[in-house]
Amino acid sequence: MKDERLLIEQIVRALSAGTGARSRRLRLGIGDDAAVIRPTPEMDWAVSCDQFLEDVHFLANVHAPGSVGYKALARATSDLAAVGAAPRYFLLSLALPDERTSAWLRLFLSGMARAARQLGMILAGGDTSRFPKVAINLTVIGEVESHRAITRSGARSGDLIFVSGTLGGARLGLELVRAAHPARDARWQRFLKPHLYPQPRIGLGRWLAQRQLASAMIDISDGLSTDLGHICEASGVGARVWSSKIPVVRIPRALRREDLDSLALALHGGDDYELLFTVPAKQAHVLGTAFKGLRLTRIGEITKEKRLVLCEASGRERQLKPLGWDPFRTSAGARSRR
Amino acid sequence: MKDERLLIEQIVRALSAGTGARSRRLRLGIGDDAAVIRPTPEMDWAVSCDQFLEDVHFLANVHAPGSVGYKALARATSDLAAVGAAPRYFLLSLALPDERTSAWLRLFLSGMARAARQLGMILAGGDTSRFPKVAINLTVIGEVESHRAITRSGARSGDLIFVSGTLGGARLGLELVRAAHPARDARWQRFLKPHLYPQPRIGLGRWLAQRQLASAMIDISDGLSTDLGHICEASGVGARVWSSKIPVVRIPRALRREDLDSLALALHGGDDYELLFTVPAKQAHVLGTAFKGLRLTRIGEITKEKRLVLCEASGRERQLKPLGWDPFRTSAGARSRR
Repeated sequence: MKDERLLIEQIVRALSAGTGARSRRLRLGIGDDAAVIRPTPEMDWAVSCDQFLEDVHFLANVHAPGSVGYKALARATSDLAAVGAAPRYFLLSLALPDERTSAWLRLFLSGMARAARQLGMILAGGDTSRFPKVAINLTVIGEVESHRAITRSGARSGDLIFVSGTLGGARLGLELVRAAHPARDARWQRFLKPHLYPQPRIGLGRWLAQRQLASAMIDISDGLSTDLGHICEASGVGARVWSSKIPVVRIPRALRREDLDSLALALHGGDDYELLFTVPAKQAHVLGTAFKGLRLTRIGEITKEKRLVLCEASGRERQLKPLGWDPFRTSAGARSRR
Repeated sequence: MKDERLLIEQIVRALSAGTGARSRRLRLGIGDDAAVIRPTPEMDWAVSCDQFLEDVHFLANVHAPGSVGYKALARATSDLAAVGAAPRYFLLSLALPDERTSAWLRLFLSGMARAARQLGMILAGGDTSRFPKVAINLTVIGEVESHRAITRSGARSGDLIFVSGTLGGARLGLELVRAAHPARDARWQRFLKPHLYPQPRIGLGRWLAQRQLASAMIDISDGLSTDLGHICEASGVGARVWSSKIPVVRIPRALRREDLDSLALALHGGDDYELLFTVPAKQAHVLGTAFKGLRLTRIGEITKEKRLVLCEASGRERQLKPLGWDPFRTSAGARSRR
């Protein structure tokens, strides 16, 4: 059994690879009791923390350790994208069983290091413990121009609702992982990607914040139906969404099943880490249909009446219930949803 | 089963009680994807994270839930004291089994709220999950004057070594909890306090940082023998400590046992959250023997030779081995050390 010092050295070595020298603003980092960081003038700090737990958010014997490391950091960083902040530093709390401190840990760290490089994040601290299950907590720190952070509470009646990318792909990937066949088939690898290696929409979030285009924003972690509800509740408004406009994942013919409905995956699947945001109608023309190749779709509008309505292609309207992820409502049998 | 929204509301309500209005510098807090905080001019940020896990750091059926909440935040905040920072904000990641979401949670939050009030900390964010064991992660954020943070790496040969308070009390309290008798006896309650309700030395840390008195500092979480080793390793030096000078806990007569040695408790017990710091010899006169009623004891000196030496009362010198807490070295049988 390696001791804590060796373990920490391994973590620091793995997660510092390729991220260059330590930031000049990071005055103290690993190896002291706290990271000490010099703020950038005229920038506010954005801080968030996110748990990633074995048997709750991932299955240690099913999900490749590299994907667990990658996704843990990517999904945490998505919370910075959701307020329009630029990612800068992260702190990793890692609790591990003995049997995960060798090969599993090496691959886990290598996946997390890849995410850190892609996201431009520097490891600034952490904590390690021994524990019967893998329990990961990521604290992510970013910067956003003063008074430019985008909240959930700024949506106003008449604002238009936009979403980036396509929705439901992460949940489809999870279904493939669960089915085992044909998930192991190389043909389906690309359908697993949104589930295993989500891409937080940093660039889009930064652009919307710097240009002050979005009145409210959230990242889709729980699911469109739940996350749109979060915006509406925080803003004291309602929403009307057109089902035909939602950019749903395409389910390949060979994978179609009766219980796999692309609209349901898109509405409630969650884990997509796309950005859901509202834009005042008179500013909507600035947006266009894509941002640097990332599709932007107008899916509805904010209403004064405080309820969520889904307008179906038939013209029928129905209540859009928040059926996305809720760790404390999900039945025990469906716990390992992700 | 309550849903996540109700749970978060309960957490926010409980932890905001008595801490006054939200800070003007906290621009976004609970209810958005990330906390957004305005830095104070001329101050650096200090950030640390700390896990507090069931069956590793505490026993959910033995330790009172209020003490678990109090200690989780207090011990995390001690890392800010250790660099000389003033505590400001915290983020709570909380994973809970169903059966801990009612009475246990209420008492846990009430203990944590008390710590937050005493430490002047404001809840800025968090995350909740359902999990088979209680897993807590605290991210603490403080502020320290630019270039004044105290590191582990500044100790120089000839510096004097000081420690605050008394050492070994937390471990003695743990032994009482384990013994069950006479721990439940009201006479012994005060001996449990250092174990259950540690007091981070914020005021002392701030004073040492602002006056630039300490060349290196750490808080005693793992144990004097291990934590002094951390300072020496980071500074590239060694240390000589006089055993007769160490402010050891007094074991009351009725609790004396053959295997309970106050020097061993003080050297290796850990969990004391006192400050261990080094001071250049020519500045030592500024210190005195106490800081605002908190005892300060000179216990040794930093040496050029890179080893830790304990000078016993007899004059005999022996190597001081780092026998404090190491989560990845402790044998499985001794896991619930705290």
